[in-house]
Amino acid sequence: MRLGPLLGPDLEEILRTDPSQVTELAEELHPADLAELMSVLATEDAVRLLNALPEAPAVAALDELELPRRVELFGVLDRDRAARFANLMAPDERADLFAELPDEVRTGLLARMEQEEVKDVRQLLRYPETSAGGLMTTAFVALPGDMPVEKAIEEVRAKAPETETIYDAYAVDPNGTLLGAVSLRDLVLGRPGEKLQTLMDPSVVSVGPEADREEVARLFAKYDLLAMPVVDLQTRRILGIVTVDDVVDVIEAERTEDIQRLAAVEPIEEAYFATGFLTFVRKRASWLILLFVEEMFTSNAINHYEWVAIKVASLQLYYPLIISSGGNSGSQSSALIVRSLAVGDVTLSDWARVVLREIGLGVALGLILAFIGFFRVTLPFPFGLGNPMQLAVAVSMALVGVVTLGSVVGATLPMVFRRLGFDPAVSSAPFIASMVDVVGLVMYFNIAIWILRLQR
Amino acid sequence: MRLGPLLGPDLEEILRTDPSQVTELAEELHPADLAELMSVLATEDAVRLLNALPEAPAVAALDELELPRRVELFGVLDRDRAARFANLMAPDERADLFAELPDEVRTGLLARMEQEEVKDVRQLLRYPETSAGGLMTTAFVALPGDMPVEKAIEEVRAKAPETETIYDAYAVDPNGTLLGAVSLRDLVLGRPGEKLQTLMDPSVVSVGPEADREEVARLFAKYDLLAMPVVDLQTRRILGIVTVDDVVDVIEAERTEDIQRLAAVEPIEEAYFATGFLTFVRKRASWLILLFVEEMFTSNAINHYEWVAIKVASLQLYYPLIISSGGNSGSQSSALIVRSLAVGDVTLSDWARVVLREIGLGVALGLILAFIGFFRVTLPFPFGLGNPMQLAVAVSMALVGVVTLGSVVGATLPMVFRRLGFDPAVSSAPFIASMVDVVGLVMYFNIAIWILRLQR
Repeated sequence: MRLGPLLGPDLEEILRTDPSQVTELAEELHPADLAELMSVLATEDAVRLLNALPEAPAVAALDELELPRRVELFGVLDRDRAARFANLMAPDERADLFAELPDEVRTGLLARMEQEEVKDVRQLLRYPETSAGGLMTTAFVALPGDMPVEKAIEEVRAKAPETETIYDAYAVDPNGTLLGAVSLRDLVLGRPGEKLQTLMDPSVVSVGPEADREEVARLFAKYDLLAMPVVDLQTRRILGIVTVDDVVDVIEAERTEDIQRLAAVEPIEEAYFATGFLTFVRKRASWLILLFVEEMFTSNAINHYEWVAIKVASLQLYYPLIISSGGNSGSQSSALIVRSLAVGDVTLSDWARVVLREIGLGVALGLILAFIGFFRVTLPFPFGLGNPMQLAVAVSMALVGVVTLGSVVGATLPMVFRRLGFDPAVSSAPFIASMVDVVGLVMYFNIAIWILRLQR
Repeated sequence: MRLGPLLGPDLEEILRTDPSQVTELAEELHPADLAELMSVLATEDAVRLLNALPEAPAVAALDELELPRRVELFGVLDRDRAARFANLMAPDERADLFAELPDEVRTGLLARMEQEEVKDVRQLLRYPETSAGGLMTTAFVALPGDMPVEKAIEEVRAKAPETETIYDAYAVDPNGTLLGAVSLRDLVLGRPGEKLQTLMDPSVVSVGPEADREEVARLFAKYDLLAMPVVDLQTRRILGIVTVDDVVDVIEAERTEDIQRLAAVEPIEEAYFATGFLTFVRKRASWLILLFVEEMFTSNAINHYEWVAIKVASLQLYYPLIISSGGNSGSQSSALIVRSLAVGDVTLSDWARVVLREIGLGVALGLILAFIGFFRVTLPFPFGLGNPMQLAVAVSMALVGVVTLGSVVGATLPMVFRRLGFDPAVSSAPFIASMVDVVGLVMYFNIAIWILRLQR
């Protein structure tokens, strides 16, 4: 639903004249739609809307609002009202907010908030944003293992308004150590008098707070989870839970990041039109410059073999064809391996098998292109350029070499990056292409020297 | 967890000598782990395992097993046993299986299955695999709107073993028309005697069976859903529900597909090592050939301007540098727009704003590269190639032109593909690069003719 164009002008009018009318809106709209509205309104109108709404729907919408906008609004809201909102927000969304707030706003809010909420924020901020600890919420239901079912249902009922999900509760011992998961399904299906210990799932899948969010997403996908506890790996105390709605958001965010990285753009979190011109320039220029500098070596390569290029002027006709074929095959291999590494189909220890496979694939694909290339070079116009047979042989051989090189480099570079602790997706298609371009040209010149028996 | 290496040899031994021992395994392992085991075992061992397991865990594992393997196993299992498994499988997983089974196996199974299950398979197979109808399951709880809470809880309890989720039930009228959603949370929190009509959510988000799975995923992400009803858009009758675990799988699958498409690989569903050599060649060769043919026009371009290239031999030093800069900037823009179109940040009607923005970005980024390029051309070795000032001006101007061209083509092509009804992601980085290469070279030659005042 694109609310902006529909509600925009009228709503702005109402907000400026009689903001109290918008309370109805809160009843009609889903918090996610209310959040969407806040993200398309001008800042001052969004603040008017937040001030006019009752607290509960305002907080629900803030929980859904995209982070950069949320940070912006908290910076301009009345500090006391903002602190009340912060007290009521979902712990995980609140922690994300505080991680991004300017220092001055953060201290101002923390000074006005309830003690317990301040402690909660501090605790959650200990973990990196992209870790399980950074994703988790502290609003979950923990129950003693010896509690009977009917009592547990009552506890769950009572805690429902302030917990993130009531579909999964957790049985703990008096120290808070996780004993097992108790789903609402188990509770509803349980016999009266039955203790949690006997109906819980003791082999519940859990992670430590430092686990990467990609790993968390993988476990949710594999085990079809709705929620997963995050536990201290030493004491097994339960620290919080991650819920599936946040995991869906994580996967969508990682998907955007993958695509941007693979296209050599520094990750951009905001929407296309919400991102400033200078931000775009910055996020794109750094990679473009790096790739440009990398690609400069092609000029050196051509310069070095200038005598060859002067002797056989037609060589230059095929520079782009040859180097782009290497780049294309490299970008295919790198995409396949980046994704296989991410889902765990391929691990670093498979490197030798991968290299062997890519050599085979590169040779097979290179031969196909070489076959087409051969006719392209020798056939007369309009199908080809009517160049001599020997040049065609040199171009064809160079194609096999460069496509194989591209395949191998494209497949191994992501593994090297993973080994060095970087995101394999930074070995983007353009990055691989520029590497392959230089070596590909050198290969082409040397094959030409050999086949055409050239001498200085 | 990588079970293969751990359990492999011993387990194979047991399966071949005394398969009855594996029943314990079924109690210890999560169905997802059992499925992982089946996917790493040799086919005959996986069949032995399936035959040795009790029916319930065997079916649970089959529901989790990746589709190509599932199809393979159903092809070799004893037909009667396979039909019993099929009767018990989750309706959505079963439909996916039947969509892929060879005709002969499918008819053999349908002839042996229960009438009701056969009808269910036929109904679900009416919808394309990538639609909401193809994702949905028919195992959901529908209850009359005037049913009181305590009765509803009992119904939910009774139907729990055969439904996909009990966390969302649906209130319907006698014709099966959807009235609203009733979550288990609502039921547990409801007062005895309260009717479903009063506690249900009447504005539940739903889709038609033809909706694309990307749209389904977008709604789940936006509204933090656990399940969503699929309704006939005319009659509003509820046809099935989509559950969040399948949506997580969809997003992961789409993520893989995006990455492959953007790197010019036809989507490959199976794992890297599970995909055959020839499949890889086929999925990669089609695109490589297309790009190769597209790139051939660069040879024509250079051939056409051969007189220029002969007069100023140093022109060729910068072919790769210039064309790759256009391709890089194009791949950045296309990735940004492909993703923005997918999440809905940019729509087709925004095209003019996008083009204007990309022109601005292209010029800015092009100027940055032109600045570096200028010194690269003029400075003496080792920093540059010591070429004359005029050539440097030509190279710099060509860089601004080609980077802008890349930006604009990269941003508009995905929109054109969307308009024509294709997946915007097929406007992959390599595809855009090849287009930009040809035009970029022509631009470079013409700028050189103009700046260097060349004449035939």
